[in-house]
Formats: sequence, C-alpha cells, structure tokens
Amino acid sequence: MRKGSPSHCVALSGGVGGAKLALGLSRVLPGDSLTVVCNTADDFDHLGLRVCPDLDTVMYTLAGISNRVTGWGQAHETWSFLEALSHLGGETWFRLGDRDLATHVERTQRLRAGETLTEVTAALCRALGIAARVLPMSDDPVRTVVLTESGELSFQHYFVRDACAPPVSGFRFAGVDTARPSPAFLAALEDRATAATVVCPSNPFVSVDPVLALDGVEAALRRTRGPVVAVSPIVGGAAIKGPAAKMMAELGMPVTAVGVARHYRERNLLDGFVVDDADAGQAAEIEDLGLPTLVTGTVMETLADRERLAGETIDFARGLDARRGNVAKAAPPERSA
Amino acid sequence: MRKGSPSHCVALSGGVGGAKLALGLSRVLPGDSLTVVCNTADDFDHLGLRVCPDLDTVMYTLAGISNRVTGWGQAHETWSFLEALSHLGGETWFRLGDRDLATHVERTQRLRAGETLTEVTAALCRALGIAARVLPMSDDPVRTVVLTESGELSFQHYFVRDACAPPVSGFRFAGVDTARPSPAFLAALEDRATAATVVCPSNPFVSVDPVLALDGVEAALRRTRGPVVAVSPIVGGAAIKGPAAKMMAELGMPVTAVGVARHYRERNLLDGFVVDDADAGQAAEIEDLGLPTLVTGTVMETLADRERLAGETIDFARGLDARRGNVAKAAPPERSA
Repeated sequence: MRKGSPSHCVALSGGVGGAKLALGLSRVLPGDSLTVVCNTADDFDHLGLRVCPDLDTVMYTLAGISNRVTGWGQAHETWSFLEALSHLGGETWFRLGDRDLATHVERTQRLRAGETLTEVTAALCRALGIAARVLPMSDDPVRTVVLTESGELSFQHYFVRDACAPPVSGFRFAGVDTARPSPAFLAALEDRATAATVVCPSNPFVSVDPVLALDGVEAALRRTRGPVVAVSPIVGGAAIKGPAAKMMAELGMPVTAVGVARHYRERNLLDGFVVDDADAGQAAEIEDLGLPTLVTGTVMETLADRERLAGETIDFARGLDARRGNVAKAAPPERSA
Repeated sequence: MRKGSPSHCVALSGGVGGAKLALGLSRVLPGDSLTVVCNTADDFDHLGLRVCPDLDTVMYTLAGISNRVTGWGQAHETWSFLEALSHLGGETWFRLGDRDLATHVERTQRLRAGETLTEVTAALCRALGIAARVLPMSDDPVRTVVLTESGELSFQHYFVRDACAPPVSGFRFAGVDTARPSPAFLAALEDRATAATVVCPSNPFVSVDPVLALDGVEAALRRTRGPVVAVSPIVGGAAIKGPAAKMMAELGMPVTAVGVARHYRERNLLDGFVVDDADAGQAAEIEDLGLPTLVTGTVMETLADRERLAGETIDFARGLDARRGNVAKAAPPERSA
C-alpha cells in the first residue's frame, strides 16, 4: 500500500467469530479507522425490550467486557433477574443476564424516545470507550425467518429456544424489501478513504446475507474503492461456532471453504478469500473461481491470533489493491452447473 | 362479633409501615379474607418501565421476599444491572435491583399487552403464592405532585432523588379527577362480608390521601358495613419511617397522633383510631373528636408484633361494630377553628 493512501477498513460482522476479527482489526488499525457493520436480522423484541445480539457481542468484545466462556453476554454476569422472573412465571428461555439487561433497557428507552439504532449504538459505544465505529446494518427492522420442514420459525426461536435442531430448507429476511441500509454504512463503502472491506468469518446465511440483501449494499460493495475480502467461517469441514456447517449440509451444499467462497462469488461480491491452513488443499479450487486466496491460521483462540489474522487480512487486501490498481472489478466466472 | 358474621377485611396501605400491618392481617385472618388496597400515586415510569413502589413493597412483604434492611426491594438482591447501566451513562438515581427489575419488566410487558394493573397485580401475586388479594387503588394513572417553595416535584424526584429535603407546602394528585377506583376496591367496600376497613400506619398525605381522593372512595368508606379504623403512623412525635412527621411540621400541623386523627376525622371517615402506648396521653383528646381509641404497642419490629397489632386492631373494630349495631355512622364534630 502506498504511503498516504487510504487506510479505513469496513468489516461486516455477525456475532462471535465476526466480533473476534473485528477486535483484531480494531487493534491493528489506527484509532478511528475501523467501521464494523453488524447484522441486525437476529434482533428481536423480548419482554418489551429490543435485543440486538450481534451488535451487543461486537460492542462487548470491542469494549473488553464480553463473556468468553458463553460467547455471548457480558463477563462477570449475574442472573438474579432471570431467577426472579422465573418465580413470576415470566419467559426465561432467552438468557438475559443482569448486566446485559442494562444494554437492552437503555437501548429500548432511547429508541422509544426517537433515536435511531445507529444513534443509540453510537451513544452506547461512546459510553463503553469503543474507538471503532459500530453500525447496525439498518435502522429499520429486518427479521430473519428460518424455513424448516415444520414451518417458519423466527430466528431466536430457531437459534436459542430450539437450539438449531430443526433442519432448514432456506431463509427469508422479513422487512428487507423496505429497509434501508444505515446511511453511515453506505457512506463508509463509498468513502474514498476506505481501503478494504472485510467480510468476517460469520454465518453466511443468517449473519452476512441479511446485510447483503439490503437495497443498495451489493451495488455499493461492487463500487467500493478497495478490495472486498472474506474470511471463511468453515474450517476443516466444520464451523468454529454456530450452525453454519449444519445449515450448509441441510441446504445440500458441500460443507467446505469452497462452498462458502462460491456462495459469495456467485454474486460477484468478493476480490479475495481467506482460508485456514487446514483447508490449504482447497485454495487452488477457490483461485479457479477467480478469487485470490490467502492461506493462514484463521482459528482465533488468543488475542494474538485475532491481531495476526486481522493484520494478514488487511495486508492481503492491500496487496490485491496494489495488483489491480483500483480498476473496475472483474465479472464473476460463469456459474458452475 | 357474632358467630357466622362477616369476616372479610379491607386494608388501605402505602409502603413499608402499611405492608407490615398487612402482613400481620394476612396471618391472623383466614386464607382469602384480606383485601389490601395499595396507593399507586407513587408509581412512575422509569427507564421505560412501570414501577409501583407501594404495590411491590406489599407484594414482596406478603410473599416473604421483602428486603427488611432497606425497607424496599427484594431480599438477597444483586445490583449488576445498575452497575452496568452506570457504565452506559444511564439514569441510576432510582435504585433498581436485579430481582426487583423482573417485577417491573413483567408488569410493563403485561400492561402493554392490554392487561389492567389490577389483572397484572393478581397474576404476580398468584405467581408469588400470595393468598390475600392485593389491589392497586386504581387502574388509571394518578401521580402525586409535591408542592415545594421552589416549585412542583414529581413524587419520586422528591422522595428518592432529593431525599425529601425540600420543604413541602402541599400536594396534588395529578389525574385523580378522571381516575376511577379499581372496581374490585369499591366492590370490597360494598361487600356485606367486609367486617372492617383498616387504614394502615402509612403516610396520611402521600399514601392514604391519594386513595381517599379517588371519586367515590370517601362515600364508599362512609357506606361500608363495618367500622373503619386507622392506625397512627406518628408515634411519640415522629414517624417510624418516611417523611410523614417532617411533612406535618412543614404544613404547620402538630406532629402528633391527634394531628393524624383530626386529619381523617375532619372528613368523617373513621370510626376508631389506634395509637401507640407512647401516645396514651393523647387518647382522651382523640376520643373527644368522637373517635373511640385503642392504645397499644404499634411499633412492629418482629413478625409477632405485626400479628399482635393486626389481631388487636381487628378485635377493636369488631368491638366498635358490636357497640353501634351497624347503625349509620355519626356526623363528625364541628371543625375546630
């Protein structure tokens, strides 16, 4: 990357895996050079409160207060609220910790007072001392509906209440036809200072696709100045966390990094792909899709892992950028039959 | 009291002191023979949640889960929510414990779904295993406004935020002109099975007066079959808890049991009065107001104290009932100048 060239990075993220890479990015990029755009199609209203699982996981992770044992919620959590709610006969299938609850109560109150989710999120991040900009993908409600053999399920009922047990046949994103992307999200993609966009190792179907399904996002990704690179959430035929691998199998896709690369590549959204060392044997096939591929360690157990993968991903994107000299992006290859 | 005669009791209650006597009543009366009507003019919406301090203190006390150290909230409480809310820059002047919060969240959700406060309270009491019937004074919002030298203050701002410091010059109950008493409250007063009504040792100005100010309540108290007796919240020139004594002084009233008796008697609402042994010297003066007076220990430190005072108060009311043979209540004496 040339001296004085743009240095801003946009990351698209779901929950845990995305948040880990976002944390790495926030530590290798200068102060305010990172915008993390979070999926909000997992959001739901529960007990009268607006719960935004992916936004919260990213916020808590960037603020250093995430619960690394559960993968969701806050560290040093207590559960008195839920225990008392249980005594009152209330709904307790969704595990709301006492600390976590403060986020939902404060957010809900601010939304009711007329703030947008983008504004509320900015205020919460400021209070938590987060330097990166964290954005919801949209200020409008979009809700993932999981299509299963026994009918449609709202995402949190599928994910938490039913523990991802029902086999899925597809997804729809209720509200996506009228929802607009958060204006700050589109502006970040259009900003000439944005040197790279990173699709974090999040679930392609329920964490990334809802973001891509918003009107104008795919076009903005094709237009954005810097390369768009994705990190595979599938490593050695399995997902590090969550139901991505199970979903791929149920949808009849190969449960491989190639399967993920093809999923994005078919829509001409990527300029590069990052796979784990365990999947080095798939790199040639992914390159054949027209996607330059970085092979490295993508499993982020330690903070050092997060920083190293973030640095390598940024450097990889910068290399692609230099190689193509910012020409218009290539058309995708023909779809394989 | 004659055999087979009515045995139901209605108690009007504010927070701590009222709840203590209500607990005593619930233990000396048979199973479902007690209706406790709670002041709701302290209620307020905080952080988007409906908080009902007096209802909650009574519920928690009757359920055996009240915090006897603070006098409000639940026992074995934790404070993670408030701590996290503080980190988010939220409002923390009103102390909401994690367990307590479950009540407010569940109540708010049920109210939003269209249940009345009477219905919500019944559901919460059922879940908590409370045999007595606990009623809000009204399903409509009534809000105490405290008149002070420096202007009007909402009750919780006066009571909690400002710790009752501003001198008061009066009160008004916003909404009381249009609010209706909870239908079950009026029905209980009109019920021929109601043998006595007890005005608990609660703050006359901000706990009992809002109940009395509701349209139809004073008339129903004059019509109710059994005697109406009040227990003085002022003992030895001081209030056991809360600002009642301070308010009386600021309003230019004598800070005595007589002062409280006169406050109710002027409106012809009482048939009898209960004062503490410490105020035995005032009994004759209260009798001169036309109010038969029971002198006994009214300071309720132990559960045995609560049960004894409840039993004595009920027996006192039964004695009044037998003496007057259920004739129409006497007119009040002329107001003293």
